[in-house]
Amino acid sequence: MGKNLTSRAEDYSKWYNELVIKADLAENSGVRGSMVIKPYGFSIWEMMQKELDQMFKETGHRNAYFPLFIPKSYFSKEASHVDGFAKECAVVTHYRLKTGEDGSIVVDEKAKLEEELIVRPTSETIIWDTYRKWIQSYRDLPILINQWANVVRWEMRTRLFLRTAEFLWQEGHTAHATEKEAIAEAEQMMHVYADFAENFMGVPVIKGTKSANERFAGALETYCIEAMMQDGKALQAGTSHFLGQNFAKAFDVKFSDKDGSLNHVWATSWGVSTRLMGALIMTHSDDNGLVLPPRLAPDQVVIVPIYRSEQEYDQTVSKAKELVDALRRKGIRVTLDSRDTHKPGWKFNEYELKGVPVRVGLGPKDLENKTYEIARRDTLSKELVPEDQAVQHIESLLTDIQDNLYQKALDMRTSLTHEAEDYDSFKTLLEEKGGFVLAHWDGTPETEERIKNETKATIRCIPLFGPQTPGKCILTGRDSARKVVFARAY
Amino acid sequence: MGKNLTSRAEDYSKWYNELVIKADLAENSGVRGSMVIKPYGFSIWEMMQKELDQMFKETGHRNAYFPLFIPKSYFSKEASHVDGFAKECAVVTHYRLKTGEDGSIVVDEKAKLEEELIVRPTSETIIWDTYRKWIQSYRDLPILINQWANVVRWEMRTRLFLRTAEFLWQEGHTAHATEKEAIAEAEQMMHVYADFAENFMGVPVIKGTKSANERFAGALETYCIEAMMQDGKALQAGTSHFLGQNFAKAFDVKFSDKDGSLNHVWATSWGVSTRLMGALIMTHSDDNGLVLPPRLAPDQVVIVPIYRSEQEYDQTVSKAKELVDALRRKGIRVTLDSRDTHKPGWKFNEYELKGVPVRVGLGPKDLENKTYEIARRDTLSKELVPEDQAVQHIESLLTDIQDNLYQKALDMRTSLTHEAEDYDSFKTLLEEKGGFVLAHWDGTPETEERIKNETKATIRCIPLFGPQTPGKCILTGRDSARKVVFARAY
Repeated sequence: MGKNLTSRAEDYSKWYNELVIKADLAENSGVRGSMVIKPYGFSIWEMMQKELDQMFKETGHRNAYFPLFIPKSYFSKEASHVDGFAKECAVVTHYRLKTGEDGSIVVDEKAKLEEELIVRPTSETIIWDTYRKWIQSYRDLPILINQWANVVRWEMRTRLFLRTAEFLWQEGHTAHATEKEAIAEAEQMMHVYADFAENFMGVPVIKGTKSANERFAGALETYCIEAMMQDGKALQAGTSHFLGQNFAKAFDVKFSDKDGSLNHVWATSWGVSTRLMGALIMTHSDDNGLVLPPRLAPDQVVIVPIYRSEQEYDQTVSKAKELVDALRRKGIRVTLDSRDTHKPGWKFNEYELKGVPVRVGLGPKDLENKTYEIARRDTLSKELVPEDQAVQHIESLLTDIQDNLYQKALDMRTSLTHEAEDYDSFKTLLEEKGGFVLAHWDGTPETEERIKNETKATIRCIPLFGPQTPGKCILTGRDSARKVVFARAY
Repeated sequence: MGKNLTSRAEDYSKWYNELVIKADLAENSGVRGSMVIKPYGFSIWEMMQKELDQMFKETGHRNAYFPLFIPKSYFSKEASHVDGFAKECAVVTHYRLKTGEDGSIVVDEKAKLEEELIVRPTSETIIWDTYRKWIQSYRDLPILINQWANVVRWEMRTRLFLRTAEFLWQEGHTAHATEKEAIAEAEQMMHVYADFAENFMGVPVIKGTKSANERFAGALETYCIEAMMQDGKALQAGTSHFLGQNFAKAFDVKFSDKDGSLNHVWATSWGVSTRLMGALIMTHSDDNGLVLPPRLAPDQVVIVPIYRSEQEYDQTVSKAKELVDALRRKGIRVTLDSRDTHKPGWKFNEYELKGVPVRVGLGPKDLENKTYEIARRDTLSKELVPEDQAVQHIESLLTDIQDNLYQKALDMRTSLTHEAEDYDSFKTLLEEKGGFVLAHWDGTPETEERIKNETKATIRCIPLFGPQTPGKCILTGRDSARKVVFARAY
């Protein structure tokens, strides 16, 4: 009863694409580069949204909504921002279609916009144009706003969840009276993202800053959390930007301070996207399909009755319902699959493919022995558990699975992280081991660029924590304050 | 301490616009016709979303996400749909900008799309293009999907929440094996919407169907819930469409039925939008500002301490915190405003403007007398309540306010609903009383069109419930099965 999934060892990239489709997470649409997020995939995204939204609110943020369209001229106001974004964007030029002479539908040339509108690739410009009206005095600060939205970046090579022309995300945009407060906010959100990645997604991450080459267009500093996928490639899982006064200056946003002076406002922005779905899938899943951490699994437990006769059906289903009730009282998300249209074997297979953390089987023998067969998705092991211990067993199993997935991912990262003392060993490590390579770097964009061109590895982050031992750059031999994380990346 | 709001009697339309701005709900953006939904307005929308989402899930629906962009050719496939929508849409023609010769940012003519993309005004076409891949057999049906999304319709005359170029909404799209099941679904969702409008928003609605003129482009039947605003104008608060097999035929979506026959799938779609915010505001609010029904109020209760000395501050705030805890234990959403930057009078004014249902004042005298001053927003009345009765009092007050708002709105609708037996009295009623006018109509689009041109009133709905007495059309004297609801509408 195979899943017909290509194995990871055979072709990791193909495995990923097949898994996304077969587990009913998402698929390509008729629109180039845009995906359809299917109900099962979307239900996982909803779990993520719910937790993140709560974390944002607990740190004082409120949601709002800003326009999808941004006038072209807004982009031009912040020079590095336009270079980074506006050039890969969808452009709205007309606002009406009409029936052409041959009866087909054509663009009505009379309905041409005076100024083209850009479909937002990110919302700094429209939001700072708005904040100008909201901010006069220090009393109006801080502004701590988040938005859940769709954005469009015209990517040429797309992959489901990882890189799509349209994607869903949240973008926080905050305004502060002081530089210190803005930096603290940007750092706080990096920690919030890391907390979410590690404690909910079960994905260990390195907290750090980006090098200038990888920094957000318009930021003075980009904080990031960097994760490693099972193939050793890096995936940027979330970024938080300290924007300095760049956007306040571009959009003329000043406030009168307590001492009466008029100053530009300090800003941050921060976001995570449906890309997290890609990170989640690629960190934990195996050749049998998706593996979900219990804290983000829409169904944490599924119960499958096994029966031959109608009588056995009634008995197992009625027993299973008792377990459902008991688990729900504990706040556990559980589904009873009593559909008569599919065989138990088919169901076992299906829930394995869909990554449900715990599967409970219940047949006539179990009724007799007062047991349940309880299987865990992460290790694929199963055991017979006395019925009076089932709830407690499942509760602790869910904690175990959550912890085990994190630990497995951490062990994998550890085993695929190496240090290089010179450029030759750096290149050898990248070729032969892959993963993260820690190495000294002289801090210049030119050196990073050369290394990237020669090895396809970029600086994923400059770690904020851990040992800080100075040394010499592997390429130029110049001084380096600390080793940084190089990797090939998604 | 006035709100400086124009009164409803003076200028209803101006009152509405000012209220939306001053209560911090929304504002116009720099993008023509697009609004910014501010945090307070968005928090009310989030309350609506949460309740609706739960209702959709309880009726078996799941969320998913489909692309923002729709290829132009998709629209042409369903003839009446393209007539109704594609002509007022934003059109994406290019996917890149570049730096022009003079250094400005211009559209890169080399990056022209082969086929233009329409920013979705509604998603039937892209969704039915997707459903074709999902549906082969009766086993794949029904499909019960909802999507929360932004849509764009290029409106020329816009008003905050009521009519904007971009708005937020949910759109349900379902696929069924039989006509009967699809009709039942469309009717069910009309009832769900009515339940939400009446029991959460406190807005009484008439359930009915639309006349052909007002029907959704591509539907065989449009079910609606129609509400009346305080100025007597009608507002369509939600629609649910029975689409027949129109989209299945346009997109070639067939399924093999149990008997082996190959049939086209039956469809529905249904939606409500941020327009509901307009309905909520215009139904209950008064010349002092917003009035929110407790079930949708982000803050149901606000507590304002009154003090002169630091000691009084400590005492009142500490007492207030006890009440906060007691109310939260009851699941009541309560905020303690202990800010020292604003005076109690300013706060009272602010919460009145923002429509918080219950306001609790607490000063040194109250501490002495063991009382709270409890004010209700709907009637603006207040009373002293012994502290040991406060929680119970507030609980029942919230229920009272919810009921009272609904009853007031219902009374208003009743007082502004009239019946006309002939065309002259119809026109007089519309001119002199406004509101809903029930009158016989011969069922033809031509007659409705003539009445519309002469009176600006349209048929808001053909009620599904209530008396069905036949008669003669007020304009043509032809037979009519029942009176229908005419009104001028938003």
